[in-house]
Amino acid sequence: MKASIIGTTGYGGAELLRILNQHPEFDIQSIHSTRDDLPIWHEYPHLYNVIDNTLQAIDPEKIALKADVVFLATPSGISGELAGKFVDKDIKVIDLSGDLRLDANQYQQWYKKEPVNQALINKAVYGLSEWNSEEIQPAHLISNPGCYPTAALLSLAPVIKEDIVQVDSIIVDAKSGISGAGRSLSRSSSFSEANENFSAYKVNQHQHTPEIEKQLHKWNENIQPITFTTQLLPITRGIMATSYVKLKESYTSPQLLELYEQTYNSCPFIRIRPENNYPSVKEVAGSNYCDIGMHVDERTGRVTIISVIDNLMKGAAGQAVQNANIMFGMNETTGLNFIPLYP
Amino acid sequence: MKASIIGTTGYGGAELLRILNQHPEFDIQSIHSTRDDLPIWHEYPHLYNVIDNTLQAIDPEKIALKADVVFLATPSGISGELAGKFVDKDIKVIDLSGDLRLDANQYQQWYKKEPVNQALINKAVYGLSEWNSEEIQPAHLISNPGCYPTAALLSLAPVIKEDIVQVDSIIVDAKSGISGAGRSLSRSSSFSEANENFSAYKVNQHQHTPEIEKQLHKWNENIQPITFTTQLLPITRGIMATSYVKLKESYTSPQLLELYEQTYNSCPFIRIRPENNYPSVKEVAGSNYCDIGMHVDERTGRVTIISVIDNLMKGAAGQAVQNANIMFGMNETTGLNFIPLYP
Amino acid sequence: MKASIIGTTGYGGAELLRILNQHPEFDIQSIHSTRDDLPIWHEYPHLYNVIDNTLQAIDPEKIALKADVVFLATPSGISGELAGKFVDKDIKVIDLSGDLRLDANQYQQWYKKEPVNQALINKAVYGLSEWNSEEIQPAHLISNPGCYPTAALLSLAPVIKEDIVQVDSIIVDAKSGISGAGRSLSRSSSFSEANENFSAYKVNQHQHTPEIEKQLHKWNENIQPITFTTQLLPITRGIMATSYVKLKESYTSPQLLELYEQTYNSCPFIRIRPENNYPSVKEVAGSNYCDIGMHVDERTGRVTIISVIDNLMKGAAGQAVQNANIMFGMNETTGLNFIPLYP
Amino acid sequence: MKASIIGTTGYGGAELLRILNQHPEFDIQSIHSTRDDLPIWHEYPHLYNVIDNTLQAIDPEKIALKADVVFLATPSGISGELAGKFVDKDIKVIDLSGDLRLDANQYQQWYKKEPVNQALINKAVYGLSEWNSEEIQPAHLISNPGCYPTAALLSLAPVIKEDIVQVDSIIVDAKSGISGAGRSLSRSSSFSEANENFSAYKVNQHQHTPEIEKQLHKWNENIQPITFTTQLLPITRGIMATSYVKLKESYTSPQLLELYEQTYNSCPFIRIRPENNYPSVKEVAGSNYCDIGMHVDERTGRVTIISVIDNLMKGAAGQAVQNANIMFGMNETTGLNFIPLYP
Repeated sequence: MKASIIGTTGYGGAELLRILNQHPEFDIQSIHSTRDDLPIWHEYPHLYNVIDNTLQAIDPEKIALKADVVFLATPSGISGELAGKFVDKDIKVIDLSGDLRLDANQYQQWYKKEPVNQALINKAVYGLSEWNSEEIQPAHLISNPGCYPTAALLSLAPVIKEDIVQVDSIIVDAKSGISGAGRSLSRSSSFSEANENFSAYKVNQHQHTPEIEKQLHKWNENIQPITFTTQLLPITRGIMATSYVKLKESYTSPQLLELYEQTYNSCPFIRIRPENNYPSVKEVAGSNYCDIGMHVDERTGRVTIISVIDNLMKGAAGQAVQNANIMFGMNETTGLNFIPLYP
Repeated sequence: MKASIIGTTGYGGAELLRILNQHPEFDIQSIHSTRDDLPIWHEYPHLYNVIDNTLQAIDPEKIALKADVVFLATPSGISGELAGKFVDKDIKVIDLSGDLRLDANQYQQWYKKEPVNQALINKAVYGLSEWNSEEIQPAHLISNPGCYPTAALLSLAPVIKEDIVQVDSIIVDAKSGISGAGRSLSRSSSFSEANENFSAYKVNQHQHTPEIEKQLHKWNENIQPITFTTQLLPITRGIMATSYVKLKESYTSPQLLELYEQTYNSCPFIRIRPENNYPSVKEVAGSNYCDIGMHVDERTGRVTIISVIDNLMKGAAGQAVQNANIMFGMNETTGLNFIPLYP
Repeated sequence: MKASIIGTTGYGGAELLRILNQHPEFDIQSIHSTRDDLPIWHEYPHLYNVIDNTLQAIDPEKIALKADVVFLATPSGISGELAGKFVDKDIKVIDLSGDLRLDANQYQQWYKKEPVNQALINKAVYGLSEWNSEEIQPAHLISNPGCYPTAALLSLAPVIKEDIVQVDSIIVDAKSGISGAGRSLSRSSSFSEANENFSAYKVNQHQHTPEIEKQLHKWNENIQPITFTTQLLPITRGIMATSYVKLKESYTSPQLLELYEQTYNSCPFIRIRPENNYPSVKEVAGSNYCDIGMHVDERTGRVTIISVIDNLMKGAAGQAVQNANIMFGMNETTGLNFIPLYP
Repeated sequence: MKASIIGTTGYGGAELLRILNQHPEFDIQSIHSTRDDLPIWHEYPHLYNVIDNTLQAIDPEKIALKADVVFLATPSGISGELAGKFVDKDIKVIDLSGDLRLDANQYQQWYKKEPVNQALINKAVYGLSEWNSEEIQPAHLISNPGCYPTAALLSLAPVIKEDIVQVDSIIVDAKSGISGAGRSLSRSSSFSEANENFSAYKVNQHQHTPEIEKQLHKWNENIQPITFTTQLLPITRGIMATSYVKLKESYTSPQLLELYEQTYNSCPFIRIRPENNYPSVKEVAGSNYCDIGMHVDERTGRVTIISVIDNLMKGAAGQAVQNANIMFGMNETTGLNFIPLYP
């Protein structure tokens, strides 16, 4: 299968290269960027002598002639237009941007940008691999989930679907490594400002809030607005979502863990930690795992759920390839058996 | 005034040295440690040619002959015995450990250690400087607050005292730099494990939980058990407490900020940030400030309150000296006007 | 082929697990440690659900019954005894410790420990894969090179063998990430001390000095003692060796680069950077590459040579598996095609 | 004394604010930037409620009416023009940029920029405080040394002046924290690229090379071109210069240390470490110290000299204030007694 990547110079694009270069079924057919005619190793010297490709201009007509699947690792505001062109030609598209995740009006409200037309949005299947594989398999257009929503949704799904938490009690306190901000330069992602620091941003205003709520609603229509906090960790990779929910009835930690174990029984990338064991972000670095641990506090009737992912893997490129695997009928783990790099 | 420090080789002790060496009113009379007969710069080469003192054995009788105030920067389990000896001789004591903060039975339950006798605990005044100065001023024995409780309590006090939040809605998601774990060696504080990592620990079981609740109760006896999460940041100094409370009635962010501004009007170390501005931990590094920002989410009726301190300063040695200043009738800022070291 | 690992709980052992678990030809037969009867994921939660093995006691007799190759990832002072037992039974051994790299008297002088008996040392082949593959292939006992020597020797070899530098001019200013210090706890590798820091240690006394000199001598017997400095970087993985040599005659940077290109023409893990391009340590993280860049300064007649490796990969476990590949007649890259994890 | 700062939004400017705000003799009269009309705390929230000043336009006429001394913390290429205007009005100027450190032709060659006119350069006194105080005291225009040259020159001065090293043997392998690159955004100073990384840059081409050589020549006219390497540490503050020189005759480490002790006997900011003790960069963080350690290797006849400074303090703002102290006849330590912030 031939894969083309558009938006290759960002971190999501680079991670797609790392995965696809070692993937047994996908070949990197071509790589594209607004900065074309440049060997990719000029941007990413770690790929020197490994990936020889040269960046090409973004010409959908030419790309469509050869690609079986196109990964859009472009910033918000661009992929909408591109996606449509490939979909019209029956080429499978996986869009890593946020452009197709929300309804047009919600997009406008939270992204403060012009939305893609609603018809295209309607065609897109939300690529939360563990929960949507039946829709993903036949889809032509995948809207790959955001990094924060992936961590939050995978850890909330069992209790929300089981309807055992108070619907207005959901709080997600999330922390992300700085690569989540992408590769464009900014004050907050400069070393001297981010190092030895920890900061909250977009408090109660992060654009991933409605994305999380939209999926929670699909699982349980009574869910009320959530509180969602995003904070910047002085690390490169990794997200932790620490979630708080209030139980309707009494459960013990082992009972809840059992529910999670059963729910994710057939999901190779979800690792439910045993009681009193909580995952740290480094324990999934470089891998496609989402690790989840939890504890019921009998004093408060609340559950603390901790989930971690590598934001560039399960939170972006890894899940994108997982979705591609599903779309092309392969085992979802194909080419994704990376063991976390520790320490 | 002559100050002696016991437990000087830990990070709290080293920070006391940094502060007291530059303090216009306190002289460092003597420094003590179980590792005696060692010039302090052997342990801390940054003090070479700055602080010439040699560590001495911990002999309360000898210390009592010369000191006006004794700082106990010892680990949990030690200071109880020492504190009593100085108090009996009318020497002022400031205990940075957790040994005198809880009632004996609670201490045993959360610290899993033998408590100090309750009579001594009863003599100790809780040294939350901004809220307890009237009791601190005449006190002979101060129980200096924990780092997490300082950050949490200062940021919750105004809404709790004003009784405007639902009493069972308090969640504190706290993050600390690794110096908070002290200087003794452990796997979780080794560089290769902590670097590029972020982890939760003692989930729902941290010994600072009852300390926070005890003070909240004094302010508002209806307060229910809180959810308190502690997490390890890959930085050396700094704590952020991100707190969530549900409002009983509707407030706007400006209204709440006004409440905080008024409450802390005369507190030089509390800086309430303007609307839409949130403090980051590095913005108080090396200083005694506690910076607080907040936002009311009208969608959920919850307030997100963000407070930051330097755990070794306002969270330990800084607040200890602030308390000493109050006890000796000085301006509470004396010798504490450190501007944060940024970047 | 069946591989056993002794000393599995150290970082070298953990990295061997990561490599061998994904290796197409080697199976992890058994893992051993002084801490036995513990599932390895208890020590390394990142391996949860990935590597199920339980640590076993170090019983050479039992290990010898099943293993084709034994990796000794033990600390200095232990492997000498173990190695002999396997060698006697014709089981191939790769020793990652420093115990077999020096002659007994030099070992005693630099390691300040009792050396292994010289007869065993004589049997060991120095496993600098790119330069010694003919000896490595038939060997039964490999002494795997140290991390610093690997970085230094690979970058010095071409000019030393070509005999174009002044023999008393060699200076290697080396910097290592903290995982190089191993997993045992120490003050200098604790986060609060190492973070935001950079320090030199064992100045002119590092035990890797004679290891480097020994190999340089084999290439050029006139080489004089070198100056070798080791410094601790506040990163987990990575070594940079910045080497300085004075040229006997005039060369340009392109001429030298051409020499390096030719020398390492058939070495898949050595990447010679083009002129004016210098490798950084992160550009090889998680991979088995050694990247080299250089510049001739016409003002001084000196060459600055910069080489980087991942100390746990090419500097330890990666090179060990590369040697195992060579010993068993496989392509040396088998199971080692890791693309650096960047960013 | 009234001080004005031009170029206040850079890190050098921010550090001048931190120092001067606490300085007993200098008042911050005004602060200036191309971004004017902004309270400085908008740029630097850590100064909230501490420094109320608002940035003003850079109007030399107006500044000259009130200031006794002007600090130019502007980027290269700007201060030349400004400096002249103040000097003409007999206002003392301390220029932190590199514009006045080299002769015009050398500047052009190494900075690749248009130089300031030579007449102004001739008026400037090189502000290496420990070595030039007699010229600094009466000067009107100080060219404040670069960060790397400060670390290198202070550590080389004793052996160069004593003429005991081979004049063509000097190598300085220098490492700097990322704040040294200033506050403007760049790929190499972005967190995701710099974190967990270490890289060399401008190999043999750094513009501080001729600055170091110029001063070495003043001390010893036979000094030959040096080898000077600059490398980027993943820390915010701190420089280490590891220097290598070959001795003409035999010396022991204690003998050399004695020479250094005597040389810097009356220099409060220079701390010569005892034998076998080497300074690390964190041990001077936030302070104006330059710590030096060294070792003679009898095997090679070379000395390894290690010096560390905080690049924003002794390498920029700290030394600038030290020079201002000297110019105005104060004790050079006035307002500079910062104890390093450790850990």
